[in-house]
Amino acid sequence: MSADTKQYIVIAGCGRLGVQLANQLSREGHRIVAIDHDERKFAGLSAEFSGFRLLGDVTELSILKQAKTHLANKFIAVTRDDNVNLAVAQIAQVVFQVPIVVARVWDPQREAIFREYGIYTVCPLILATEDLLRRFKELRPPETQA
Amino acid sequence: MSADTKQYIVIAGCGRLGVQLANQLSREGHRIVAIDHDERKFAGLSAEFSGFRLLGDVTELSILKQAKTHLANKFIAVTRDDNVNLAVAQIAQVVFQVPIVVARVWDPQREAIFREYGIYTVCPLILATEDLLRRFKELRPPETQA
Repeated sequence: MSADTKQYIVIAGCGRLGVQLANQLSREGHRIVAIDHDERKFAGLSAEFSGFRLLGDVTELSILKQAKTHLANKFIAVTRDDNVNLAVAQIAQVVFQVPIVVARVWDPQREAIFREYGIYTVCPLILATEDLLRRFKELRPPETQA
Repeated sequence: MSADTKQYIVIAGCGRLGVQLANQLSREGHRIVAIDHDERKFAGLSAEFSGFRLLGDVTELSILKQAKTHLANKFIAVTRDDNVNLAVAQIAQVVFQVPIVVARVWDPQREAIFREYGIYTVCPLILATEDLLRRFKELRPPETQA
């Protein structure tokens, strides 16, 4: 991987999605800092995870500073709370000038707010709905599948 | 919509995903029964929702009978609990012989179990991870976008 494509990525929140992303992006050779206020959440990080674990509250500026957020190419806000994600995503963007900021949003109606702030969103609910409806048009009973 | 494509669909669980699917599938002209043990969950159903609301525990056979599950073309298990989804999905398939059964799974490691039973799964976590990683390869900072 060239220096160009090797990135520094801060992940705020180590729930299932945060851990999954941290493991995968670390495997791809990126430098990762994974932040969570609950130490137990780091248990999901793989043995091969080569990034840093940072224990603390993602809404505290001091923690984001410790994470060297101002150096990050990407910031991913994936705590369990939409409001926290919106808040820290904005801080990452405005205070730390991170070029690409992505946040998970549970509530699809909030996506517009995030987009207004230039924050990319990922909404598992919309993805699951689209996936299910699309596959419904293709699915056949397992027994009668050609 | 022809009689052929108009389907009878039972949705177990009216959380966000259940409600979203119920509204969309009802709009497409399908006959829907939406089941939840918490009446407040039905509030998410749209004013245009033309299906039935059934208040009760989806793990009870009597409720599934009331829902006329034996007549269903499709059964969707989207309660908040993976174990409940697996249990009712199997009941729908084995007891009520529903041809196509889909369940939401939070834990990707459980997907294999569902598949073993011939139950289709949708895992929002995997979808969100894939979506984010795919878009990461394309995303540019909003300001510098061509």
